[in-house]
Amino acid sequence: MFNIAVAQSGGPTAAINASLTGVFNGAEQNPEVDEIYGAENGIEGILGDRLFNLRNILTDEHDKQLLITTPSTILGSCRFKLKDYHEDETDYLKIVDTFNRHNIKAFFYIGGNDSMDTVMKLHSYFTENNIDIKVVGVPKTIDNDVTETDHTPGFGSAAKYVAASLQEIIRDSRVYSIPSVTIVEIMGRDAGWLAASSCVLRANGEPAPHMIYLPEGEFSPEKFLNDVKQAQLRYKAVIVAVSEGISAGNSSEFSSELTDAFGHKYNSGIGKWLEKFTAAHIGCKVRSIELNVMQRCSSHIASLTDLTEAERIGREAVKAALEYGESGVMMAFRRISNNPYRVEIVPSDITKVANQEKKFPREWINPEGNNVTVDALNYFLPLIQGEPVLEYKNGIPVHFRLNQ
Amino acid sequence: MFNIAVAQSGGPTAAINASLTGVFNGAEQNPEVDEIYGAENGIEGILGDRLFNLRNILTDEHDKQLLITTPSTILGSCRFKLKDYHEDETDYLKIVDTFNRHNIKAFFYIGGNDSMDTVMKLHSYFTENNIDIKVVGVPKTIDNDVTETDHTPGFGSAAKYVAASLQEIIRDSRVYSIPSVTIVEIMGRDAGWLAASSCVLRANGEPAPHMIYLPEGEFSPEKFLNDVKQAQLRYKAVIVAVSEGISAGNSSEFSSELTDAFGHKYNSGIGKWLEKFTAAHIGCKVRSIELNVMQRCSSHIASLTDLTEAERIGREAVKAALEYGESGVMMAFRRISNNPYRVEIVPSDITKVANQEKKFPREWINPEGNNVTVDALNYFLPLIQGEPVLEYKNGIPVHFRLNQ
Repeated sequence: MFNIAVAQSGGPTAAINASLTGVFNGAEQNPEVDEIYGAENGIEGILGDRLFNLRNILTDEHDKQLLITTPSTILGSCRFKLKDYHEDETDYLKIVDTFNRHNIKAFFYIGGNDSMDTVMKLHSYFTENNIDIKVVGVPKTIDNDVTETDHTPGFGSAAKYVAASLQEIIRDSRVYSIPSVTIVEIMGRDAGWLAASSCVLRANGEPAPHMIYLPEGEFSPEKFLNDVKQAQLRYKAVIVAVSEGISAGNSSEFSSELTDAFGHKYNSGIGKWLEKFTAAHIGCKVRSIELNVMQRCSSHIASLTDLTEAERIGREAVKAALEYGESGVMMAFRRISNNPYRVEIVPSDITKVANQEKKFPREWINPEGNNVTVDALNYFLPLIQGEPVLEYKNGIPVHFRLNQ
Repeated sequence: MFNIAVAQSGGPTAAINASLTGVFNGAEQNPEVDEIYGAENGIEGILGDRLFNLRNILTDEHDKQLLITTPSTILGSCRFKLKDYHEDETDYLKIVDTFNRHNIKAFFYIGGNDSMDTVMKLHSYFTENNIDIKVVGVPKTIDNDVTETDHTPGFGSAAKYVAASLQEIIRDSRVYSIPSVTIVEIMGRDAGWLAASSCVLRANGEPAPHMIYLPEGEFSPEKFLNDVKQAQLRYKAVIVAVSEGISAGNSSEFSSELTDAFGHKYNSGIGKWLEKFTAAHIGCKVRSIELNVMQRCSSHIASLTDLTEAERIGREAVKAALEYGESGVMMAFRRISNNPYRVEIVPSDITKVANQEKKFPREWINPEGNNVTVDALNYFLPLIQGEPVLEYKNGIPVHFRLNQ
C-alpha cells in the first residue's frame, strides 16, 4: 500500500475540479492506493506540506458529483516555477521530503503549459536521483494552447459559455433601429482558440459574429475599420469577436496611447481600445464587452462533454502511472473522428509539452484574415455538446465548498 | 371582431418576449379578437405603420415556448418620448390613423418607466377625444424601479444571472494564496435593486459579497477603503458588489478625474474607478468586473418564476382591457406572501407609474451603509426560483428568430 497526491495549478476553469474528481476516482479504484492527498495551492502545498486527505472530503457520490460541476480549484492554485535543480536543489529536497513523509509514490499535476514544466523537472530530478515517484500531468486551460493534445479540459466549457453569451449579446444588440457595432473581447493570451470558437453559432444559422480576429492572423486597425464598414452594408448591428491577444503583437501601437489621469497606462484591453478607435472613425453607436473571468469559470453553462472528458483524463492519468508505470508524461486527447465524435486518451512525452504553446492553425483563418473556416467549426462543435444536470438550492447552483 | 396591437419598448431583458407571448396567448383566448399585431421598434412601429401579424409568426406551441426563453425583444425596441398632445398632435394623429386602418381596439405596451409615459399620454388623448381604444401597460425592466408593482418582469432573471455569476467569480477569486479585492459592477442606473439582490448567496451560506453599495445609501471612497481593509482582516479574497449608480450622486468626484489619451472622459464606470483607487491605496491585487449587458439578456440562466410571471402578466393585461374594460393602467404584481410565495396581478393607475422611479428602501440598508438586511433577502429570494427547460441545438440554446 502507498499514497498518492494531486494538485491544481494555473488559472481557473470550469473543469479542473472534474479532473481532480477523476484522479480521486482512479485512485479509489486501485486497491494498492491507501490515502489520496490534495495539495493546497498547487506545488506550493507540496513544498509547505499542506495536504488535505481527500477521502475525508469526498465522502460519497453526491460530493463527487457536486465537485465535478464546481468551477475553479477547490484546492487552490499557484503560479510557481521550479528552479533548475542543477542550480538550486532546495525546493526539490523539500518536495521529496513531503512525498517521503507521507509515503506518496505518485503525483498528479493538473495544469497548463507552465505547470507541465513542473512535471518535467520533477520527473527528471526523480529519474536522475533514482527516486521511485511517478509524476503525471493532466492538462487544463481555457486557452486550449497545450501541445500534443487535441484540446484541453476546460476549453469546451469556456467555448460553450462564449457561444451562449455571444448569442444573447447578438439578440441584445439588435434591439434598436439604429446601426451599431459591438466588439466582444474574448480571452486567450497569445492563442486565438477561444475567440475562434465563437464561430459555432454558424451551426445554428446565426451569421454573427460577422468578423473574428485572432492573434495568429495579421491585424491592423485600418483593415478592421474597413471590415466593419463593409459589414455595415449588410448588417444593421455588426458583431465582432476579438481575441484579447491581438493587442500583443502590436503592443506599442495599442497600449502606449492611452493613459488615465493617474498617468497609468490604460490597460482595459483591445476591446475598449477598438471601441474608441471605431467610434472616432465611424459615426454610430459602438460598444465593447469584456467577457472577463466569467468565461473561465461559468460552470452553470459548462459543456457536459468537457466535464466528462476532464474526469476521464484524470482517471486515465492514475491508470497510466499505477498500472503502466508511466512517468514524465502528460495525458493527452487524440481525436479519432469528428462525426461521431470519438477521442482516445494517450500519454504524451512531457518534454514535448512543457513551455510549448499550440497556436490556432493559420490554415483555419480565412484569406481575408477576419474569420475562420469550416474546418475550425467542425473541430469546435463536438467540444461544446451536452449540458450537465446541476443541483440548485434557493435558485442558485450549488457548489462544492472546502471552506469559506 | 376587432384586432389588437402589442409593442416592446426600452432596454432588453430576458422576459420581455415572455410578456409578448402572454399578450398573444391572452388575445388568442379571446374569441372577439381577430388579428394580433406586433409593432416593430415599439411606438415607432405604430407611427410608421410597421406591423407584424403575430398569428403568422407564432404558429404553434413550440414557437411560443421558444419565444418565452428568447432574450431581448423580437419586435425590436425604441426610446421614444411622445410630445404633449396639447402642443403637438401630429404623432397622435398618425397613431390613431394606424390603429383605425387596422381596426385595432386595444394596445399593449411592454416597457419601463418611460414607456408608461406613452401609455398615459395615449390613454389621456383617447379619452379626451372619445376614441375607444384601450391602452394597457405591461411592466418590464431589470432595474426593478417601477412604482406600484412589487417587482418587474425581467428583474428576477437578471438577479439569478448576477447571483450565479457572482458565485462563480467568488470561486475564481479564491484560487491563489495571495490577498485580493474583487469589485463587481452591477447595472441599475439610479436604483440599487439588482446590486442589492446579490445578497441572495447568503441563503446558501456564502458570506460574499462582503459589501454591497447602492445609490440609495451614502457612499464615500474613503469609507469604502476602510470597509475593504476591515473585510481583509477576515477574508483573503474580498468581494464587493457595487451598483453602477453609486457614481451618479458623486459624478464630479468620480468621472471628471479620468480621461484617456483622446482627451475623452473616462467612462468605464465606477467599478474600474474603484479598482484603480483601491489599488493605489491598498497594496494587493485588485480587479473590477463589469457584468455588462449579459446581466440583462442572459436567458440561459433565466428565473422560471420570472418567465412564468412575465407571460402571466401579459395575459392578464389582455383580460383587463378586453374583459374588464380597463385602460390607462399598468398591470402590477401585488405580493400576498413570501413563504409560500404568492402574488396577484392587479391594474394600477398609470398616472402613479409614469415617469416615477421606485428606489431600494433605505430601511433595507444596514446601518453601516455597506450591505442589506434580511428583509431584502426575503424579498429577493422568491424571484429567482426555478429553471426553465431550454432547447439546445449543437450545444447552444435555441432562440426564436424573426429575421437576421
